Amino acid sequence: MRFEEKLSKIVEKNNSLLCVGLDIDKEKIPNYSFLEFNKKIIDETKDLVCAYKLNMAFYETLGKEGYETLEKTIKYIPKEIIIILDGKRNDIGNTAKKYAASLFETLKSDAVTINPYLGFDGVKPFLEYKEKCSFILCRTSNPSAKDFQDLKIQDKPLYVCVAEKIKQWNTNKNAGVVVGATYPEELKQIREMLGEGVPLLIPGVGAQGGDVEKTVKYGTNKDGKNAIINSSRGIIYSENPRNSAIKLRDEINKYR
Amino acid sequence: MRFEEKLSKIVEKNNSLLCVGLDIDKEKIPNYSFLEFNKKIIDETKDLVCAYKLNMAFYETLGKEGYETLEKTIKYIPKEIIIILDGKRNDIGNTAKKYAASLFETLKSDAVTINPYLGFDGVKPFLEYKEKCSFILCRTSNPSAKDFQDLKIQDKPLYVCVAEKIKQWNTNKNAGVVVGATYPEELKQIREMLGEGVPLLIPGVGAQGGDVEKTVKYGTNKDGKNAIINSSRGIIYSENPRNSAIKLRDEINKYR
Repeated sequence: MRFEEKLSKIVEKNNSLLCVGLDIDKEKIPNYSFLEFNKKIIDETKDLVCAYKLNMAFYETLGKEGYETLEKTIKYIPKEIIIILDGKRNDIGNTAKKYAASLFETLKSDAVTINPYLGFDGVKPFLEYKEKCSFILCRTSNPSAKDFQDLKIQDKPLYVCVAEKIKQWNTNKNAGVVVGATYPEELKQIREMLGEGVPLLIPGVGAQGGDVEKTVKYGTNKDGKNAIINSSRGIIYSENPRNSAIKLRDEINKYR
Repeated sequence: MRFEEKLSKIVEKNNSLLCVGLDIDKEKIPNYSFLEFNKKIIDETKDLVCAYKLNMAFYETLGKEGYETLEKTIKYIPKEIIIILDGKRNDIGNTAKKYAASLFETLKSDAVTINPYLGFDGVKPFLEYKEKCSFILCRTSNPSAKDFQDLKIQDKPLYVCVAEKIKQWNTNKNAGVVVGATYPEELKQIREMLGEGVPLLIPGVGAQGGDVEKTVKYGTNKDGKNAIINSSRGIIYSENPRNSAIKLRDEINKYR
């Protein structure tokens, strides 16, 4: 099944644009089985989300145990829910092909995040997986995003040039874009540029402080869809993750 | 020992700027133990190199077996030789910290490669490891590098803006820069901008076709040092890896 269709079905079924980020952190959950932690979060939220996002850094820092936790968590996620592996991978073509195989084939994800700095030949091997979605970093959610992403090329900031290239590269209709919720004006601009059909992955609500109303208003398409809104720390380390997920899903839905 | 000192000692001892890329590839070495393959290459080249570079993509695509091969290869490399983990990692600050811990602490590398697209807060956690070196992508070796890296900000291409920022961020004197051998003019310009003290990691000779004479002439400092020149496929999949490594090391030394 194509990513597009899988996303549309689960958004419908769970009435949700919410993505929960399973960012296990040994500083926050010491003396705890990370796999059990993830299973508990999944059990408590699987009827409330359209996707889970696993940031590779948190798993890699745990070494071999982390890799096993990653594999087992992926297996535990219900088949109907989108799995995004957030690794922001990038390399020259020959090597990018290996990353794509690793994330889409070895680990069986539905979607990944990739960094565009190396240009098209580093992005192409990901886009060749037609059933999958590759979310390309455009305007990231962090304060230093401006260091390079706002630099002006003639009158256009770099992130706009990136969005233009993504539009041009997207011949398989399977590219997505990452835009931080912390930059609502840029989010609006990017949605307008890319049109209705491109899915946006939007981190930055929750712990990073992005505004939910603007995120939904500017990030979704005219049907109130095609945006995946992520919260990680704000949900999984809250006192009651299920309640936090319900609250954020409902707040998102209020503005759709 | 600081990276700088370790590099200087091994360059002296082996009289070499050569880095061999241990990019194991199941398409090229089927039915073979990857660990044994790496051990053989290390045995044959350890007196000829200053560094080994392991590109994470090739290990990740092998799943858990790949992770174990990575760990065991790192342990097998003689302590005096520089280990570069080439993962081109990047993320927001909170997460970049995890990647840095993963590569420098869990995997015990001497140096890493990182992608600058997210700006300073994504780079800072790496530079906080003062004994280690973080090579930041500036001008990459691939044909599509031009897609974004050559875009002009006023009169300066983006890669020059990246080099300027690296200079500014480098308060711990432990940043390095990645510049492809396939772009000699840019290499020259970046060495001049950054001065003598910054190590350059230069991929792109060998299979990618970069010119060795120009790479050495433009990439090294006035003492003929502080450049690490990488070849992967061109050496490890050649008929006689030791002979190929000797040939390239000697060709490099001819121009130093």
